[in-house]
Amino acid sequence: MASSTRQFKLGAFLMQTGHHIAAWRHPGAQADAGSNFRHYVELAQKAEAAKFDAIFLADSVGVRNSDLASLSRTARADHFEPLTLLAAIAALTERIGLIATVSTSFNEPFNVARKFASLDQISGGRSGWNLVTSSGTGEAQNFNRDEHFEHALRYERAAEFHDVVTGLWDSWEDDSFVRDKPSGRYFDEHKLHVLGHKGTHFSVRGPLNVARSPQGRPVVVQAGASEAGRDLAARTAEVIFVAHQTFDEAKAFYADIKGRLPRHGRHPDDVKIMPGIFPVVGRTQAEAEEKFEQLQQLVHPVVGVSLLSNVIGGFDFSRLPVDGPLPELPETNGPKSRQRLLLDLARRENLSIRDLYLRIAGARGHQQVVGTPARVADQLQQWFEERGADGFNIMAPWFPGGLDDFIELVLPELRRRGLFRTEYEGRTLREHLGLRRPAHPAHPAHSAREAHPAAIA
Amino acid sequence: MASSTRQFKLGAFLMQTGHHIAAWRHPGAQADAGSNFRHYVELAQKAEAAKFDAIFLADSVGVRNSDLASLSRTARADHFEPLTLLAAIAALTERIGLIATVSTSFNEPFNVARKFASLDQISGGRSGWNLVTSSGTGEAQNFNRDEHFEHALRYERAAEFHDVVTGLWDSWEDDSFVRDKPSGRYFDEHKLHVLGHKGTHFSVRGPLNVARSPQGRPVVVQAGASEAGRDLAARTAEVIFVAHQTFDEAKAFYADIKGRLPRHGRHPDDVKIMPGIFPVVGRTQAEAEEKFEQLQQLVHPVVGVSLLSNVIGGFDFSRLPVDGPLPELPETNGPKSRQRLLLDLARRENLSIRDLYLRIAGARGHQQVVGTPARVADQLQQWFEERGADGFNIMAPWFPGGLDDFIELVLPELRRRGLFRTEYEGRTLREHLGLRRPAHPAHPAHSAREAHPAAIA
Repeated sequence: MASSTRQFKLGAFLMQTGHHIAAWRHPGAQADAGSNFRHYVELAQKAEAAKFDAIFLADSVGVRNSDLASLSRTARADHFEPLTLLAAIAALTERIGLIATVSTSFNEPFNVARKFASLDQISGGRSGWNLVTSSGTGEAQNFNRDEHFEHALRYERAAEFHDVVTGLWDSWEDDSFVRDKPSGRYFDEHKLHVLGHKGTHFSVRGPLNVARSPQGRPVVVQAGASEAGRDLAARTAEVIFVAHQTFDEAKAFYADIKGRLPRHGRHPDDVKIMPGIFPVVGRTQAEAEEKFEQLQQLVHPVVGVSLLSNVIGGFDFSRLPVDGPLPELPETNGPKSRQRLLLDLARRENLSIRDLYLRIAGARGHQQVVGTPARVADQLQQWFEERGADGFNIMAPWFPGGLDDFIELVLPELRRRGLFRTEYEGRTLREHLGLRRPAHPAHPAHSAREAHPAAIA
Repeated sequence: MASSTRQFKLGAFLMQTGHHIAAWRHPGAQADAGSNFRHYVELAQKAEAAKFDAIFLADSVGVRNSDLASLSRTARADHFEPLTLLAAIAALTERIGLIATVSTSFNEPFNVARKFASLDQISGGRSGWNLVTSSGTGEAQNFNRDEHFEHALRYERAAEFHDVVTGLWDSWEDDSFVRDKPSGRYFDEHKLHVLGHKGTHFSVRGPLNVARSPQGRPVVVQAGASEAGRDLAARTAEVIFVAHQTFDEAKAFYADIKGRLPRHGRHPDDVKIMPGIFPVVGRTQAEAEEKFEQLQQLVHPVVGVSLLSNVIGGFDFSRLPVDGPLPELPETNGPKSRQRLLLDLARRENLSIRDLYLRIAGARGHQQVVGTPARVADQLQQWFEERGADGFNIMAPWFPGGLDDFIELVLPELRRRGLFRTEYEGRTLREHLGLRRPAHPAHPAHSAREAHPAAIA
């Protein structure tokens, strides 16, 4: 049933009430989504019925914001822990991939390797690990530290963490467990591999106490866009989730990453690049804009002003009239940063403080598309066909309605164009993504035979 | 529907193929239980249909045994991670409690607090944390250490770990989240409590990013029997899972723990003591003994001899004839230890090496009962009525058959005697166990009103 043309990969990025900062106030939103398990089950089952490759969960190990006036007006402080949530969702779904974010900063690799391996067993080969490093002070302070690790150290630790985790996933060969009742032989001891890792940050003996994954290894996802992040991703990531504002950015990033792969002995198809997209869809352009405007109207000024202060390097706008102009701000040195771009924009278009915070209230740095199904499809198609993306992580503005709109309006259009599947091709997340099943290092010969099904298909 | 007489609490201690060391070789056993999610779902649903208070999962963060010849003949090396497994089971059950073991030795309290809080939200108030410390060298070596923490330090760390976790569970008051769409107020900032813990082992700011549990707090379970363990349990445990060989031991432990509670301002009903019981049940005594003998026959000599060597302080019996007598062994100083008791037993009854290892192959230090439903019920009733136990953690010799026997043969007998429920009285694990819902410390007055429903009932 697989189409002979190259097709999109699609993730459904689930996030409590939605990705728009005021989503929880939408009349149709499930305001208690952060504690409502049924809400997540319905979204996951909906995404599975629509044949998404995976659902995707972000994470933070702390309450990010210290500005209580703003925090208490957003739905960001209470949410499920991603691995327990995905394990529970695994029991009520059959095919869709399950990707959870877990930071390497405040965890032990043995625990992380084990949880994803366990989720892979529970789900029959559908787990993926979004490897991130933590940079929030609020997170560090929950883990015996005053400050987060500095950037280079975070990535050095992350790289070693990755190698320990994947090494532990190879503790057992695929056919280690013979479980032969008559002879009493439960596993073949020659197929057990002790990792014996001794590195800079970790010393981990192994073996893992979970059998090898149905997928060989759970899928490794990354999101880093810095130089250190790209380097780590080119060596280790199988999916890259990334934020771009423009097609040019996306295309440059795509070429850069795919160009780095051969240095690590990897094929371009070994990594799927999936930028985030924040779609607001209407049957007409006017309807789409109206839907967006409805959300924008719900941004409480306290929340909007706080958001703007965070982006513009901590300047406190809260005592200024929200519909007045921006104040003069001190120049910053160095290259044009995001804050400089925003200030220039405000100046050029004569924006008030409110106007400006509304420009950043939606997609949090990701590409935002407000329009008809054809317009959204056009944009995804361009990014895909002109090598800016292998697929997309769909960030619905609010749940469930924003995801419903994408499924009911955009997916049929994508399918008419042959860009997205009508049925799953396989059972595991790797099979959905067209990623090869990693051979066990004890049998590298398998690797050649199994390599690159996507390239052959 | 609650009976006016005091009734048992019952846990179903699930463990891969079963608690007997040769369980996996039983013709009816699910040999791949350690990777078979469906197997666990069936057991959990069975235990729920039988109205057990909870299912219980042990854990170890490593492969315990370095003796590969023996390890490769047992079903102990591969198993699910307990929290992912229980979260998945939560989605397919409605009432039964879900207790997972997590060690304080190789985890961070923020992560542990969060996972159990998340499981409590997912399950609607059914989660319990069995707090243990890790003592295996094989575990320590997976976490950057050569040796496990020494005993006193382990317990000091565990006590502080407990206080941080429960403190984080109180980050939010019950009614913190108002989620009022018209005003834009999502939570009441006066009902958020920042822990700000700075102690010897941990520095954790908080707040937790999960709302207060449906149970107030997940239930805290402990298993320590040492002086340090009892002391910690008397201050903090709500359920104690313990191993006793004899009724006298059980009674002494029960009196000791209940006697310690007032010193911590606690009521005897605030802690439920639930020893493990390993029941082998037959319609006749002969049938029960036959069932037990069937399992004993399946103990591979390599496994049995290794087990014996571990219990008798590392002496290597593997070169001696298995059906010959025990060798002379060096005397140990100090009080009569378990190994001394075993050696005396072997001498007194003229046991061979095989005879002796079979004496310890079943219940791993827990009370073993082989007999008719009436005999098993008699014993449980005696322990319960004569203050040796508030309930029992049932360790079926093999799954599913050993649990089926308990449910089909023993439970009807217990119900005839009015000792076990016929229907759940409530929805949460606390309600099943008759434990009060902890008041939030910001409103200690609630505590008095809600205290001790079990004492009132």
